[in-house]
Amino acid sequence: MADFRETGTVLNPKYDANGLITAVVTAADDGTVLMLAHMNDEALAKTIETGIAHFWSRSRQSLWMKGETSGNVLRVKEMRVDCDQDAIWVIAAAAGPACHTGERSCFYRRVADDGLERVE
Amino acid sequence: MADFRETGTVLNPKYDANGLITAVVTAADDGTVLMLAHMNDEALAKTIETGIAHFWSRSRQSLWMKGETSGNVLRVKEMRVDCDQDAIWVIAAAAGPACHTGERSCFYRRVADDGLERVE
Repeated sequence: MADFRETGTVLNPKYDANGLITAVVTAADDGTVLMLAHMNDEALAKTIETGIAHFWSRSRQSLWMKGETSGNVLRVKEMRVDCDQDAIWVIAAAAGPACHTGERSCFYRRVADDGLERVE
Repeated sequence: MADFRETGTVLNPKYDANGLITAVVTAADDGTVLMLAHMNDEALAKTIETGIAHFWSRSRQSLWMKGETSGNVLRVKEMRVDCDQDAIWVIAAAAGPACHTGERSCFYRRVADDGLERVE
């Protein structure tokens, strides 16, 4: 079964004990990693169906369309699944900042020798 | 505390109940997402100390230097932490395939209308 999941052509996500897979979102234009989030089966299905990224909010325990209030939706250009199908790579065009802080990417600080420094 | 973690310059990872953060590794040359894995505090410290990516293997429950047997190490060019510090973005030069299947990236299949298709 593991081999089939790794080599096959059937989307068969390996959800964790909480029913989730990890999703990493990169920007279609320049490859910047915008955010990491989680999807349950419903979020994944909605994402595929609508072409707009949906996630499962672990804090709110609810389905969440990214940008549903802010308008900063993520339009999916391509999705890839990893070898053991417990992670999804979403390549997307972002309508605005992906981070709730207002930054384009959640990864706005680099690890430096003496702590974190803001990426320009 | 949440605000300080988001806006501050102190690396203060928010480990989950298992003591882990998620790490996403991209290729320094073209931004391809190579793999997703997890780090505990020791793996993160070793990665920072050595410049070679280390992870925590959940299946083996042990520290793991990527490439320790295959030689396919990941040399870290830059690391970034996300807003709430529960994820790390590792930008790395890969000495060889990052995936245990021999593929360059674990994300070698795209989600298509009728299942998965191999990325060239």
